[in-house]
Amino acid sequence: MANIYDTGLDKNAANYVPLTPLSFLDRTAYIYPQRLSCIHGQRRYTWKETYARCRRLASMLEAKGIGLGDTVAVMLNNTPEMFECHFGVPMTGAVLNTMNTRLDAETIAFMLNHGEAKVFIVDREYAATTQQAIALAGRDMLVIDVDDPEYTGPGERVGSIDYEAFIAGGNPGHDWQGPSDEWNAISLNYTSGTTGNPKGVVYHHRGAYLNALSNIVSWGMPPHAVYLWTLPMFHCNGWCFPWTMAANAGTNVCLRRVDAKLILEAIREHKVTHYCGAPIVHSMLVAAPAQWREGIDHKVSALVAAAPPPAAVIEGMNQIGFDITHVYGLTETYGPASVCAKQPEWLSLPLEDQVRLNGRQGVRYHAQEGITVLDSESMRAVPWDNETMGEIMFRGNLTMKGYLKNPKATAEAFRGGWYHTGDLAVMQPDGYVKIKDRSKDIIISGGENISSVEVEDILYRHPAVMTAAVVATPDPKWGEVPCAFIELREGASVTADEMKQFCKERMAHFKVPKKFVFEAVPKTSTGKIQKYLLREKAKSTTAIE
Amino acid sequence: MANIYDTGLDKNAANYVPLTPLSFLDRTAYIYPQRLSCIHGQRRYTWKETYARCRRLASMLEAKGIGLGDTVAVMLNNTPEMFECHFGVPMTGAVLNTMNTRLDAETIAFMLNHGEAKVFIVDREYAATTQQAIALAGRDMLVIDVDDPEYTGPGERVGSIDYEAFIAGGNPGHDWQGPSDEWNAISLNYTSGTTGNPKGVVYHHRGAYLNALSNIVSWGMPPHAVYLWTLPMFHCNGWCFPWTMAANAGTNVCLRRVDAKLILEAIREHKVTHYCGAPIVHSMLVAAPAQWREGIDHKVSALVAAAPPPAAVIEGMNQIGFDITHVYGLTETYGPASVCAKQPEWLSLPLEDQVRLNGRQGVRYHAQEGITVLDSESMRAVPWDNETMGEIMFRGNLTMKGYLKNPKATAEAFRGGWYHTGDLAVMQPDGYVKIKDRSKDIIISGGENISSVEVEDILYRHPAVMTAAVVATPDPKWGEVPCAFIELREGASVTADEMKQFCKERMAHFKVPKKFVFEAVPKTSTGKIQKYLLREKAKSTTAIE
Repeated sequence: MANIYDTGLDKNAANYVPLTPLSFLDRTAYIYPQRLSCIHGQRRYTWKETYARCRRLASMLEAKGIGLGDTVAVMLNNTPEMFECHFGVPMTGAVLNTMNTRLDAETIAFMLNHGEAKVFIVDREYAATTQQAIALAGRDMLVIDVDDPEYTGPGERVGSIDYEAFIAGGNPGHDWQGPSDEWNAISLNYTSGTTGNPKGVVYHHRGAYLNALSNIVSWGMPPHAVYLWTLPMFHCNGWCFPWTMAANAGTNVCLRRVDAKLILEAIREHKVTHYCGAPIVHSMLVAAPAQWREGIDHKVSALVAAAPPPAAVIEGMNQIGFDITHVYGLTETYGPASVCAKQPEWLSLPLEDQVRLNGRQGVRYHAQEGITVLDSESMRAVPWDNETMGEIMFRGNLTMKGYLKNPKATAEAFRGGWYHTGDLAVMQPDGYVKIKDRSKDIIISGGENISSVEVEDILYRHPAVMTAAVVATPDPKWGEVPCAFIELREGASVTADEMKQFCKERMAHFKVPKKFVFEAVPKTSTGKIQKYLLREKAKSTTAIE
Repeated sequence: MANIYDTGLDKNAANYVPLTPLSFLDRTAYIYPQRLSCIHGQRRYTWKETYARCRRLASMLEAKGIGLGDTVAVMLNNTPEMFECHFGVPMTGAVLNTMNTRLDAETIAFMLNHGEAKVFIVDREYAATTQQAIALAGRDMLVIDVDDPEYTGPGERVGSIDYEAFIAGGNPGHDWQGPSDEWNAISLNYTSGTTGNPKGVVYHHRGAYLNALSNIVSWGMPPHAVYLWTLPMFHCNGWCFPWTMAANAGTNVCLRRVDAKLILEAIREHKVTHYCGAPIVHSMLVAAPAQWREGIDHKVSALVAAAPPPAAVIEGMNQIGFDITHVYGLTETYGPASVCAKQPEWLSLPLEDQVRLNGRQGVRYHAQEGITVLDSESMRAVPWDNETMGEIMFRGNLTMKGYLKNPKATAEAFRGGWYHTGDLAVMQPDGYVKIKDRSKDIIISGGENISSVEVEDILYRHPAVMTAAVVATPDPKWGEVPCAFIELREGASVTADEMKQFCKERMAHFKVPKKFVFEAVPKTSTGKIQKYLLREKAKSTTAIE
């Protein structure tokens, strides 16, 4: 039944505009045309210049026939061009598909075809694989090369035109239009599925807008941050930070590769105030020689996510004086959609407790409506007892549109009105979510669940350990037992027996790894440990029990 | 034509939730249950308590049959109850109509009937007028009394039940539902029209949510602010700050009335970090004896709006060390929808220039899509020449749904796809809007436009002037001439001739007021000078020319 507020009060051009994060770029370029938007090696751009470059790109793409619902794929590092693609591509109505730069040609070809890419923008560094991928895909595409002066390694151009030459022909004042519907897709992010084909996660303008603001509000980011790009922009669109930085009117400090020395130099030189990354990034900074940090005396705030951060990382960051906040999310939730919100009273607790409390997955982001732990089948909430395991679920506006051309996987993921993360967790008595494991990473030994994360957390406390990964390996007696892969710190050495003893003193005996393997641990480019490789290895390993 | 991103990627309960600022209260009560939400005199509430009180209120209103599209009117000061109504009322789907506490009985009766109020919540202080209004309105309403312990003045109860008794019967865990559509109305704010009946401005959940966040991001408000309620919550819902404070997880310091001593005491005692107000509020603090400010040594940030701030106010605030930011907007734009965004290079300019630059209406808020200056008829943009006058127009998500039951006024206000403010302004060369006057306040003398604001700005520079207001008065020779009303600072004195001389040295001679009247200047409760009263007075005044 209509009420008085439903009559004569409709949407019109003056009072309703579909949400889009592109609007933040327009605002910042208008208000702060001369502020630095990007620093990359010797290059500097102002917001006015960046906006003009994005509009040039958009106008040229449109001239090539790109528009609503077309896909533009890119394989780029954290360069100004990558940042520009986050605006120039969706300005046309097209969808940005950022690809992981470590992918092999076959996977790239799969994505190009599945996403139906019409344009492919490629950094010269990836010439070899992309050339192969383009041949494999057999698609009719416009291929554009990025030849970054900061890159001096091998790689021929593979496309028909250079990015700079391409946008040079564009219109810096191009009159782009925002989406007619905020539910329109803005980007496509393939998950690095460990089995089967990757799934294409689709984001919309509404969610990108809301997470751009939520990053600011949930982190408490002040205006005009200096943000260092340690996190790849190809990963969940850099957790939406390209759009956040446009709203924040800050400065992007670009970085082609993650390297402790380069990061610390950039922090010192450009007075970086904020950065994000997987635990491995922070570990590297903690492990770096102290003299590399000399001269950094301003406040640096960091977000950590992408994998549960070992307590040792949080503790180490504390020790070097960086303020670290733990966020949690998945590709399906625009990157971070929950935060381990800090409580003032934690500050008076022993460091160990602070570290434990700050290492949780926490509570919902401002713009996400819910995070909870439910029984996957009954969809009933687990008690807040820190014991009963369930699956972490999200709902709200920071949840993907769905998986591209995969209604079955989409329906499965959204079963019961919640997005099922596949992560197992408990709810702690203060209502904070604490992850225990990925469903597939849990180790079931003699009927008992062993959280690999919990065991790893203890392993990280050993001074010789740089990286630790625990996986299940079949056992005739127990069904499964834990097997630990350890990457040692430079110059450190330790035996399996010593590690076992170390564990026995700190955990229930059934949780102590039965095997220890000392070698480099394989990781994805975003720092995630590739446990599926380790599981294979654990089966065949001859490591001493 | 459908594209691949339009298929199988629909909205569902997991990935789409209508925006509502009520969600922020739920989040903050969940994460920070023990943090202080409200301080009012001797009363203290935590966020958990405030949330429980809001839910009790909602459940009781629902029990009384209140729901979607019903109107709940309130006449309340800045008390915890007023804050609670901003959540408890819309939780039911009903619309909150906050009334100006200075209204007369007839106007109140008009609003109760026009808004079709079903409930009326009244502070005992307004018993006399509201009782009369209720009788005049002749409506069947549930009337609820607020008997604030901080109020000890006269006034009987007028309703059938006391607020505390009413909510005591409610359910603190009431399972309220957010709006099914974010376009649903959340509040109704009558404009204090100076001619004809007041118009009822309708806000929706979407806009309230977005401005709640935009206040944080556009002002650069850190989490957990301590916010002093100098601005009435009945005015544009306190510029959306009840919802901002819920998102910010800060503390509301309530205040029944604006009084310099009380304000400064609250700032000192509760370490207030933020407050908002009309220029008059800030003027009072600037003019207050220095010893009242003793002991305030923390950073205080203030927003000023509601009327163009005289340069002297900005300068004075600078001098007492408060950080003031100028915002601009109208009831129709959820309060502030533009901000005079500060540029770092201004800091190196002489104070006078800083004051001039910071006193402008500025640029759009993050969540507003546009502010511009257009010719009212042709809808063409004026050049950025600081000279050509046009009308300030807004568009975007911080613009009202429209005027309740007034399609004609709504259509007129939204003519050409922009909201017409009625304020005259120029565009300055840096793209900042500078207001010249309300359309109706401009003085046309011998064919020349005189901005009353410009003349007032100069008058405020005179040390004897506390408040200045310039209006047109008929003149046989020039058509209109400026007439100045001056309220002097305590103990100060000045003659009309001295003032004229002061003006002549600082402005074009045709702009110098021909008449000066020294007396108290009438203001609305929100600090707006009531120029329509002054215009009447100017016509009949016998002040010496």
